[in-house]
Amino acid sequence: MKIITFLTDFGSFYPAQMKGVILERLKNKEVIFVDIAHDIPPQNIRAGAFALLSSVRFFQPGTIHLAVVDPLVGTKRFGIVVDSGGHLFVGPDNGLIMPAAKSLGKLRAFKIAYQFKASSTFHGRDVFAPVAAMLAEGLSPQSFGSRIRPVDLDFGDSKRLIDGIETTIIYVDYFGNLILNLKKLPSFELSLKGIKLKKVRTYAEVRRIEPLITIGSHGFVEVAVNQGSATDAFCLKSGDRIKLEEI
Amino acid sequence: MKIITFLTDFGSFYPAQMKGVILERLKNKEVIFVDIAHDIPPQNIRAGAFALLSSVRFFQPGTIHLAVVDPLVGTKRFGIVVDSGGHLFVGPDNGLIMPAAKSLGKLRAFKIAYQFKASSTFHGRDVFAPVAAMLAEGLSPQSFGSRIRPVDLDFGDSKRLIDGIETTIIYVDYFGNLILNLKKLPSFELSLKGIKLKKVRTYAEVRRIEPLITIGSHGFVEVAVNQGSATDAFCLKSGDRIKLEEI
Amino acid sequence: MKIITFLTDFGSFYPAQMKGVILERLKNKEVIFVDIAHDIPPQNIRAGAFALLSSVRFFQPGTIHLAVVDPLVGTKRFGIVVDSGGHLFVGPDNGLIMPAAKSLGKLRAFKIAYQFKASSTFHGRDVFAPVAAMLAEGLSPQSFGSRIRPVDLDFGDSKRLIDGIETTIIYVDYFGNLILNLKKLPSFELSLKGIKLKKVRTYAEVRRIEPLITIGSHGFVEVAVNQGSATDAFCLKSGDRIKLEEI
Repeated sequence: MKIITFLTDFGSFYPAQMKGVILERLKNKEVIFVDIAHDIPPQNIRAGAFALLSSVRFFQPGTIHLAVVDPLVGTKRFGIVVDSGGHLFVGPDNGLIMPAAKSLGKLRAFKIAYQFKASSTFHGRDVFAPVAAMLAEGLSPQSFGSRIRPVDLDFGDSKRLIDGIETTIIYVDYFGNLILNLKKLPSFELSLKGIKLKKVRTYAEVRRIEPLITIGSHGFVEVAVNQGSATDAFCLKSGDRIKLEEI
Repeated sequence: MKIITFLTDFGSFYPAQMKGVILERLKNKEVIFVDIAHDIPPQNIRAGAFALLSSVRFFQPGTIHLAVVDPLVGTKRFGIVVDSGGHLFVGPDNGLIMPAAKSLGKLRAFKIAYQFKASSTFHGRDVFAPVAAMLAEGLSPQSFGSRIRPVDLDFGDSKRLIDGIETTIIYVDYFGNLILNLKKLPSFELSLKGIKLKKVRTYAEVRRIEPLITIGSHGFVEVAVNQGSATDAFCLKSGDRIKLEEI
Repeated sequence: MKIITFLTDFGSFYPAQMKGVILERLKNKEVIFVDIAHDIPPQNIRAGAFALLSSVRFFQPGTIHLAVVDPLVGTKRFGIVVDSGGHLFVGPDNGLIMPAAKSLGKLRAFKIAYQFKASSTFHGRDVFAPVAAMLAEGLSPQSFGSRIRPVDLDFGDSKRLIDGIETTIIYVDYFGNLILNLKKLPSFELSLKGIKLKKVRTYAEVRRIEPLITIGSHGFVEVAVNQGSATDAFCLKSGDRIKLEEI
C-alpha cells in the first residue's frame, strides 16, 4: 500500500483535482493520501520547505511526497523527482523539496523531461500528480529524465551580532508561534522588540500571555506566547527578519 | 473501490459526521473519501457549483459526488440524485450540482422521495450522506424517486458593452485570483478599475505585484496579481459584478 | 478495518506527523483516517470538547478517537485512554474527551503510565499517536496503566434570571452560528443585545439577514442569522457569556 503525501499553497479544491488524477491512473492499486498542508502562504517556498522538512521523517521509506509551491509555473523551470533515504519527492525545481530530501540522506535528483500535455498554470495537476501516480506504480525516478543538480534553498541567514542574533522567521504556525532559523537556544538572556523572552522547555512554564522562547517539536527555535499568539503580540510574520537582543 | 467526493460550505467538524454516517452504513465495503472543499463561502451556491464543475472531470466514472450548499435546508426544496457521464451526484435541488453534471454529458435527475428521519438543519448528514452510502452499495438513482427537471443555475450574465465587458466574479481562490464568468480572453486591451491588465499565458510573465488576465487551469478567465492577491489589490470579492474596460 | 478520527487545535502540518507515526506502526494493517477538526481555537478545550461530543455518535463502535487540545503539554498532566460504548478515546486528561465519552455510556479511564520518548511540546505526535496505533493493533486500554478518575469538564453555567437566561457560547461554527450551552428553547419570547430572536425550526423560516434562535443539528440551542453571520452581527465569540433577555 503506497502512501502519497501532499503539500501545496493551493488552499481549496485544486488539491482534490490532483487526487482525482492519481486515483484515475492507479485504478487497481491501493493508495493512502495524507495531506501535510494546503495553506502554505501563497508562493512562500521557504514556508512550504519548512513544513515538508518537519514532516517527512515521520513517514516510512517508500512514501511519495508531492510538493507544489510554484511561483514560476509555466516558465522554463524544471520539474524534478528526488530520491532520498528511500522516500521519493516530486515537485518544481525551486528548492522546495531540498531541505526535506537532504534531511533523509544522500539524495539523487532527476529532471522530468517527459512532455506532459499541461495547462500553463497548474502543473501540480497536469505534471506532478501523474508523475506521483507513475512512481506509485513502480516507475523509477531515473525513467523521467537525466540526473541534475537541483536548485538549493536555505531558510535565510542567521548571524551573531555584537549585541544579539539576527535571524529569519521561517514559518508562523496556527498557534501564532514564530519559528526561527535557529537550532539552538542562545546562551545569553534575550528579548525581542524590547520584551524579555523566558527560556523554557514547554509553554506552560510561564504564566498565561507571557512570551517565551523554546526549541519546538520540529527542532527549531520558536518564540511563543503561552495561550496567546506571538505573531499578533509582536506584529511579526513569516519571512520577517528579526533581532534577538542580548540583555 | 468506490470514490466519494465531498463539497460543502460546512467548514469544520460537520463533514466528519457525514463520513461517520457513510462508514457505518458501508461496514464491509471499501471507500475512498476525497474532500473537494468545505470552505465554500457560506450559502454561496454559485461558488460551490464552480468548485464542483472544475473538479469532477478529473475523477473517474463511478465516482459519487456529495455536494451540499443548502440555504433552504428544512423547507420544501427537494433533494436530488443526478446521473451524468457515469458519475453520480447527491445534494439539494438548487442548481449546485447542475454545471458539473451538465459538463459530463446528458444528465438524468431523480427526486429523493424517501422520507429520512432528519434534523431540520443538517440534511447533509441525515439525508444526503445515507443516500451516497446507498448509491455506493449499488442502489440505482431511480430507486430514490421519480425523474424531475432539476433547478438550473448559471454563473451570472456576461455582456458586451460599447466600451468593455460586464461580468461576474464567480469565485475567489486561495491566491486571491478573481475567476470570472468568461471563457475567452477579450480581443481588445483592457483594464479593471482603471488599471491595465496584461494578457498572459502564465503568472510569471509579468513582474512581481503586476496585475494580469489569463485563462485559468479551470478554463475560465481569471484576473490575478503575480505573487500578490487580486482580491486585495482590487477590493473585489466572489459575487461582485465588474466591468472590464476596453482601452 | 479500523477507523481513527482526529480532533486538534494544531491547524496545519502537525496532524500529518501524527498520521505518519500511526501508519509507520501499523505497517500491515488497514486504517481509515477521518479528520473531525484541526481548527479548534487554540487551547480552547471546551470548543474542542463540543466538536468531539457532536461527532462521535455518528461513528461506529470500535472507532478510535485521537483528540488533542493540550495547553499543559509537557507538564505533569496525564495522558488517558477512555473506553466508552465500545469507542476508544486517547488524549490529555483535561476534560476534552469527557463530554463525548459520557454521551456514549458508562466510561472507564486509564492513565498512560508508559514513558514514551517524547518532545516537551508535541505529545499528540510522540505519545497519543503511538497509543492510538497500539489500540488499533488490539492492545487493551488497561495495558497502558491503572484506572483513574479523569478530570471532568462542563460547558459553562447556564442560569435562569428574573428577566432572562445567562449562558455561555460554547462554539462558533463556520456559518458564524453561536452554539449555546442550552438544550431547550426558552418558553418565553427573547432578545439578545436588545435584538429580537425569532424561534424557528430552520434558518429559512425568517427573512434574509434576520436573526433567529433554533435547536441545531447537534442538539444545542444556537443563535443564527439567516444567510448571514451571528458572530459578526452580535460581535460575540466562543467563550463569551451572554444574556438572553425575556421580552
